[in-house]
Amino acid sequence: MQTLVPEAGRTTEHLETGQAMHALLKELFPLCRSITGEGLRATVGRIAELVPLDITEVPSGTKVFDWTVPDEWAVEEAYIENERGERIVDFKDSNLHVVSYSEPVDAWLQLAELRRHLHSMPDRPDWIPYRTSYYSRSWGFCLSDRALNAIPDGRYHVVIQSSLTEGSLTLAEYRHRGACDDEVLVFAHDCHPSLANDNLSGLVVAAFLAAWLRERPTRFSYRFVFAPATIGSITWLSKNESTLPRVRHGLVLSLLGGSGPFHYKVSRAGNKAIDRTAWHVLRTEFPGSQRLEFLPWGYDERQFCSPGINLPMGRLTRTPNGEFPEYHTSADNPELVSAAELGEAWMACLKIFEALENDNTYVNLAPKGEPQLGRRGLYRSTGGYQDVPERQLALLWLLNQSDGVASLLDIAERSGLTFSALSRAASDLEASGLLARNAQRDRTT
Amino acid sequence: MQTLVPEAGRTTEHLETGQAMHALLKELFPLCRSITGEGLRATVGRIAELVPLDITEVPSGTKVFDWTVPDEWAVEEAYIENERGERIVDFKDSNLHVVSYSEPVDAWLQLAELRRHLHSMPDRPDWIPYRTSYYSRSWGFCLSDRALNAIPDGRYHVVIQSSLTEGSLTLAEYRHRGACDDEVLVFAHDCHPSLANDNLSGLVVAAFLAAWLRERPTRFSYRFVFAPATIGSITWLSKNESTLPRVRHGLVLSLLGGSGPFHYKVSRAGNKAIDRTAWHVLRTEFPGSQRLEFLPWGYDERQFCSPGINLPMGRLTRTPNGEFPEYHTSADNPELVSAAELGEAWMACLKIFEALENDNTYVNLAPKGEPQLGRRGLYRSTGGYQDVPERQLALLWLLNQSDGVASLLDIAERSGLTFSALSRAASDLEASGLLARNAQRDRTT
Amino acid sequence: MQTLVPEAGRTTEHLETGQAMHALLKELFPLCRSITGEGLRATVGRIAELVPLDITEVPSGTKVFDWTVPDEWAVEEAYIENERGERIVDFKDSNLHVVSYSEPVDAWLQLAELRRHLHSMPDRPDWIPYRTSYYSRSWGFCLSDRALNAIPDGRYHVVIQSSLTEGSLTLAEYRHRGACDDEVLVFAHDCHPSLANDNLSGLVVAAFLAAWLRERPTRFSYRFVFAPATIGSITWLSKNESTLPRVRHGLVLSLLGGSGPFHYKVSRAGNKAIDRTAWHVLRTEFPGSQRLEFLPWGYDERQFCSPGINLPMGRLTRTPNGEFPEYHTSADNPELVSAAELGEAWMACLKIFEALENDNTYVNLAPKGEPQLGRRGLYRSTGGYQDVPERQLALLWLLNQSDGVASLLDIAERSGLTFSALSRAASDLEASGLLARNAQRDRTT
Repeated sequence: MQTLVPEAGRTTEHLETGQAMHALLKELFPLCRSITGEGLRATVGRIAELVPLDITEVPSGTKVFDWTVPDEWAVEEAYIENERGERIVDFKDSNLHVVSYSEPVDAWLQLAELRRHLHSMPDRPDWIPYRTSYYSRSWGFCLSDRALNAIPDGRYHVVIQSSLTEGSLTLAEYRHRGACDDEVLVFAHDCHPSLANDNLSGLVVAAFLAAWLRERPTRFSYRFVFAPATIGSITWLSKNESTLPRVRHGLVLSLLGGSGPFHYKVSRAGNKAIDRTAWHVLRTEFPGSQRLEFLPWGYDERQFCSPGINLPMGRLTRTPNGEFPEYHTSADNPELVSAAELGEAWMACLKIFEALENDNTYVNLAPKGEPQLGRRGLYRSTGGYQDVPERQLALLWLLNQSDGVASLLDIAERSGLTFSALSRAASDLEASGLLARNAQRDRTT
Repeated sequence: MQTLVPEAGRTTEHLETGQAMHALLKELFPLCRSITGEGLRATVGRIAELVPLDITEVPSGTKVFDWTVPDEWAVEEAYIENERGERIVDFKDSNLHVVSYSEPVDAWLQLAELRRHLHSMPDRPDWIPYRTSYYSRSWGFCLSDRALNAIPDGRYHVVIQSSLTEGSLTLAEYRHRGACDDEVLVFAHDCHPSLANDNLSGLVVAAFLAAWLRERPTRFSYRFVFAPATIGSITWLSKNESTLPRVRHGLVLSLLGGSGPFHYKVSRAGNKAIDRTAWHVLRTEFPGSQRLEFLPWGYDERQFCSPGINLPMGRLTRTPNGEFPEYHTSADNPELVSAAELGEAWMACLKIFEALENDNTYVNLAPKGEPQLGRRGLYRSTGGYQDVPERQLALLWLLNQSDGVASLLDIAERSGLTFSALSRAASDLEASGLLARNAQRDRTT
Repeated sequence: MQTLVPEAGRTTEHLETGQAMHALLKELFPLCRSITGEGLRATVGRIAELVPLDITEVPSGTKVFDWTVPDEWAVEEAYIENERGERIVDFKDSNLHVVSYSEPVDAWLQLAELRRHLHSMPDRPDWIPYRTSYYSRSWGFCLSDRALNAIPDGRYHVVIQSSLTEGSLTLAEYRHRGACDDEVLVFAHDCHPSLANDNLSGLVVAAFLAAWLRERPTRFSYRFVFAPATIGSITWLSKNESTLPRVRHGLVLSLLGGSGPFHYKVSRAGNKAIDRTAWHVLRTEFPGSQRLEFLPWGYDERQFCSPGINLPMGRLTRTPNGEFPEYHTSADNPELVSAAELGEAWMACLKIFEALENDNTYVNLAPKGEPQLGRRGLYRSTGGYQDVPERQLALLWLLNQSDGVASLLDIAERSGLTFSALSRAASDLEASGLLARNAQRDRTT
């Protein structure tokens, strides 16, 4: 049995990891990330201090499937100034103030005209929205609705000192080598500026999972990819097409903070091993978890699950995108995300990985009637009680279902027991000589 | 894309059609229809003014499967008279007063004896029930329970001047020729006397659908059959057996007035294209619609779905037979049925037909990752919003699922989007060169 | 049509049988049964007065699959005595007082030390629990918690005059020969001492079913097996392995008294004919019945449904083991079980058997449209009514579905009608020449 989850005895491990993750999240929060540029490079540079990353810079103009890698964007300065020279909106205060990929502008405008370039949220008057305009040349500012409404009529000086120049898009990945080449692919997008849950939460959980696995032997190899949303995953896919057949299971990680329960969104096929495993672990060990059907909307599962790629990849979040009010606003800040939530998400991923690693198939070597567990010390000696302990049930389910075809996951799903209880019981029965691995049916060789 | 449904802009079309249908219904209401006879002929004669009908008269005595076409029934006069010569029940007042297919009688009876021939509804004391005795020779009168109880003891003169003579059963049909010989079969029974919802509502909706299609090109051919219930559909089936293999989809129409939601009853197989299409259109566009399992009880779907015929025919009604109190009583009159309800039913049928016509299969020509919809003007240019417009979702679903195997209906069912939204989006993507029809998978050639 | 259920007219049959079963249950209650020994022999001896039983004694030490037949256990006397020579616990008062298979003891102990051998139920202070220690050598007493707490400190004389000596385990069976060798296997465990519902209820129902079938011709053969739980069913299986392929359907009977609804637990496969038949009969004829998924915990279905045996056997109980408070306590006495409940359980089993016997497949000989039932006297002659009688529905369902493939059970499940209504209707249609048996599809030859 492959053990990845910190032992029950050491219950503080995920809390300590949670705190370390939250500290990293706060450190990364101020950087002005976009789908290209220095903020992105600084972010992956910081993660590379945790695990060694392979960095690939893909030049602007490169054709990637139906897309082209865009020019690199940078902002020096950006503000709106009134006639008295007072800056009423300034990029220095929040990097959400500027619409991502705004083109340069330096002009005096009447408020009425300016307003067509201003974005606010009337129903959330104190929050700054997050807006982008990657592929359509324009410029804009985002600000709170309260600030917008406080702007008196008049002329304003609008300045965005931005540049869009040939550069490159930054991809980063860490590969953990396991006993076999079959891979678990983990993806987190890293292009959002000062937003904490979306997706610094996914970024730090992925980084700490990579660091944890690095020190442990595994059956599968694990590939962790950090890239911008959409154009980043498309670029990565186009550069890695030849190795995609190795991907046996995959997870897109995002929105792992916030107080909502876990939401697992299944892959395009909907019934892959990752779908069944992730959902079984979540429903049996994380009460309140929700299972979402596939939908070609959301994060980079849209690319991984496009029909010409079609990887067995699901998506793990807590409350999904668009379903919590702080989504894509300045209220998605480090206080929205707690160390405990990050730690629990990290633990949930490890439990999913552990189940993937241990999904073996066994044969009951004493299949006629139940074997006498009592004389092997696997059964309580006094009979007649009303209840049955979970461990005993796990032994009975394994013996009943282990026909050399049903795997531990099949048995876990049918019994409703946790995968880990069955996995431990399988080890005990194997040690007692009652179960044998059916290596030919193993999900990986 | 085949367009049958009046454009969203012209929203009054179905209301105008509804009014025309209701006017026709009121005109047909007084005729004394039965499974044979002049009332039936007058009814189909009036419909023939809307669309040219092929009329077939099948002689009494003709063997039709396990049945025999019965003699033709006619009533000259029918009444119950008291000793003072006052008519206390008279066929002239309501053609429901006489049990359909009553044999002639002219006799004086004591009330006690007479009562064995009188039908009333004690729980609905003001309504006259509708009763028939097609295949067992007898006679009877139907009257309100209040009227029945007001009859004083005494002797009564009972007169039914009816005749049962060799004649014929009248079948009527309209065939609309489409691009291919594969047919959509629409059936409405036309044998009920002065009952509005059952089935003048089905009759007028079918007639106006025929008239609407007549002026429009279609992929499928459409056959509209008007015939008496049971013996009529059996006779039609026995006369048209050789052409049944052409029937690709079918609908029995009845009870399309009244305030209840639509009820679609699936075919015997339960999962035919008509079942999936009709139910998808109803559940996504007509809130409150109900799906009913197949049951060998109801209307002529009993014959079309008998095991030796087994056509892919469902049934569309609003509240089903036997489930609204006015069913088969004098309270099923033109006021029970509104023009708006008829118009909506007509529109629902057109939407079902339109979906049948457009259920094509496409291949995504840029299947690796999502294609860049923005540069093709198919995507909003500013990103970051919480919601996603339905049209954008339709584009993404089509691209994600169009693998040359899944048809629009498959994608509509999986996505829960309306068929028409997907059909329009497919046209746009085809025009952009992102989707191509997979003609080999088309549901019709 | 094979008739096993007493006719509707003679409704007292199951009540009389219920009273006879309850009388036998009371007679058997005081015997001290265990998995071996004289109490067990006396029990099967009494049943042999109802139906002739084949008795097999399997010697101690015989290897049966992974188990060994244990030594035979007997108790002469057992008590706890205080220093004044007063017996405060005495086996004579209740044979639950001694842990089953207690080894001999004769010692003076301090209360503190004695307590480690005493079992009580603090949450049910007046009840004596039932405990066993078949395979781990020890001794113990069971007593009410109230009695336990009333024992003053001091020294006590503990005496169990028991013996564990070479002997044998007693198996008993009755075989009813039907028209074919295919068998219905009925199993009831008979090893529990003075407990009424568990499992004297199952025992007496099985015995009276055997007696009832004995006088009737059947299609299937029926084998009734009475044996101790676990070791008994394992021993029987190991001795009868060669004849197991004959078992077409099977039921484990237990807990058939008490006021709870029937609970049918499906076989390991979950969709065998016995599962479908038993559940259909229960859900359509015994309101409130519950269907339980398979679980490798419970009674002897654990052995019959082990992977190397895997018989199509379900389990019929009322409220299952461990889910009613009296389970395995002195409160499970004859008053917990009523004659009416036993009678109803006996009737339910007969209805299940009758459905198994009659699950034939028919072909509609007039499959085009509905045949004219009216002229064959199978349809009411006046039409127009709102409702449809169940008998008419049964005729229509049979005609609609009888394609030579769907069996009566298939049609019963699809229609939701009772199996017996369909079975009677099939006889009528066969007599009218409208249906013919498709003997090739018969579930047994």
